[in-house]
Amino acid sequence: MTRLLRLAGAQMGPTQKADTRRQTLDRMIALLEAAAADGATLVVFPELAFTTFFPRWLLTEEELDGYFEDGMPNAQVQPLFDRARELGVGFYVGYAEKSPEGKRFNCSMIVAPDGSVLGRYRKVHLPGSVEPKPGQRFQQLEKRYFEYGDLGFPAFRAGPEWQGAILGMMICNDRRWPESWRMLGLQGVELVCVGYNSAAYDPNGGNTEDEGLRTFHSKLVAQANAYMNATWAVAVAKAGDEDGSGLIGGSCIVDPNGLIVAEATTRDDEVIIADCDLDLCRQGKGKMFDLGAHRRPEHYRAMTERAGVVEPD
Amino acid sequence: MTRLLRLAGAQMGPTQKADTRRQTLDRMIALLEAAAADGATLVVFPELAFTTFFPRWLLTEEELDGYFEDGMPNAQVQPLFDRARELGVGFYVGYAEKSPEGKRFNCSMIVAPDGSVLGRYRKVHLPGSVEPKPGQRFQQLEKRYFEYGDLGFPAFRAGPEWQGAILGMMICNDRRWPESWRMLGLQGVELVCVGYNSAAYDPNGGNTEDEGLRTFHSKLVAQANAYMNATWAVAVAKAGDEDGSGLIGGSCIVDPNGLIVAEATTRDDEVIIADCDLDLCRQGKGKMFDLGAHRRPEHYRAMTERAGVVEPD
Repeated sequence: MTRLLRLAGAQMGPTQKADTRRQTLDRMIALLEAAAADGATLVVFPELAFTTFFPRWLLTEEELDGYFEDGMPNAQVQPLFDRARELGVGFYVGYAEKSPEGKRFNCSMIVAPDGSVLGRYRKVHLPGSVEPKPGQRFQQLEKRYFEYGDLGFPAFRAGPEWQGAILGMMICNDRRWPESWRMLGLQGVELVCVGYNSAAYDPNGGNTEDEGLRTFHSKLVAQANAYMNATWAVAVAKAGDEDGSGLIGGSCIVDPNGLIVAEATTRDDEVIIADCDLDLCRQGKGKMFDLGAHRRPEHYRAMTERAGVVEPD
Repeated sequence: MTRLLRLAGAQMGPTQKADTRRQTLDRMIALLEAAAADGATLVVFPELAFTTFFPRWLLTEEELDGYFEDGMPNAQVQPLFDRARELGVGFYVGYAEKSPEGKRFNCSMIVAPDGSVLGRYRKVHLPGSVEPKPGQRFQQLEKRYFEYGDLGFPAFRAGPEWQGAILGMMICNDRRWPESWRMLGLQGVELVCVGYNSAAYDPNGGNTEDEGLRTFHSKLVAQANAYMNATWAVAVAKAGDEDGSGLIGGSCIVDPNGLIVAEATTRDDEVIIADCDLDLCRQGKGKMFDLGAHRRPEHYRAMTERAGVVEPD
């Protein structure tokens, strides 16, 4: 059998602090239209797609509020939702959510081609720190600005327009944690959508991994975890230089064998496309990675009993 | 700081059913000596290293017993242990264990350079089936011949001759399961030793993954899981054609960045060597993969509550 879904990754180049919301939204609509023109029915945008990656700055409450969506959709993003419905295209998008209770999350949603919300996800694995690091030009303050996601890792079954696919979401750093993938694998996920903003180098001049190694890591975790969970995956970057801080590109679509079938070649706005046969997941899910037949949860207890390391004597 | 351990992977070519135990042991001793001559202090042999991969056949109880070690070490393997101690070299080796209670396990052990047993491991993730599949020339009967490992995934702290390294073991199929790696990661593992026998193709002529893809998978899981747990890893094959059934090679040593630093080029007896700086684990363990700071076990509950898949409605 063949269950084809034509999938697009809409990589975005950098968004500067000074860019207006409307400029950025227009770029997203252009990417959406390009993907739709190529026949894609699902378009995946990056993490925090509507703005620059603002957790790199220590902000006032008022500045911070300007980066958050109060209700989703809302007037300032509505044109993207409208255009998608006109084109009959659905999408994944990452955004900063201000919840009805006033809580802030690093969030993503999947919108179906008919404009309905298929599901929401709130980022579980927040990197960075609560307190700003003194003397650094750029911070990583996700632990300060966001609460930890409180929805777990829900998977969602799409309608017939997406072949009844079982879809899951992650955001950025989540993809480096095999737990995120397995939680979705345990729900039979067939396509994992991930948006990210990942530093290309230490923006404060520290001598750590270079851009090539960081891009390798980003692809490696998508490939291996897709394979180990017998699922398709798409990982989509916001890339390039944002106000002097660099972000990797490397957006890619990965098949259930862990092979990259499409990848971005720039650090700019760029659409990548693949025809994903969801039934390619069957070989792995039915045999090598038949979780019910082969997992041994009685030997995994430490995974849920504690967060951190306990070394042997 | 630098904590160097010179590590060898002792890949083995095929072992036929007709080969004598002594022939195979002599090959292992030759590999050990070659590795020691290159300055290695830890030599990693494959899974079920002393014999052919016998779970491919339906055997009588008496035939089966001939493949198992009754006590370890015992007279028939003692020459390897003796030579290693003479050379001041330790090793990992996989073998079929008959326990004092008469239980059968797919087992491995690490022997320190002074000849003492640092630790034992019994394979948790047994592939294959209990019942033979009718009409097939080759079986995969690990679930028939072995009990599931009952020791969990213990990590062991080595002595000063191995820089106090925290070592862990897996056997073959375990390496495809991120749970195995995380259980060791949660103990601060710095070097994971894996031996394997992995089919190069469907020996019964089915049209599935080819040898290139299977070798890619084997390396991919070692690379990504080493990275995600900030550990060194060494994965060592028994390779080549055993009585008409093919096994992949692809033995490799992987650093905590997931980069392959040494790999086998043949499907025969072959030593690969790398100087592993255990302190290379520190960058990952202290930052990106600081498990205590970033893991969220409250969202991983399904991982230990059930083995298999529950799909969304």
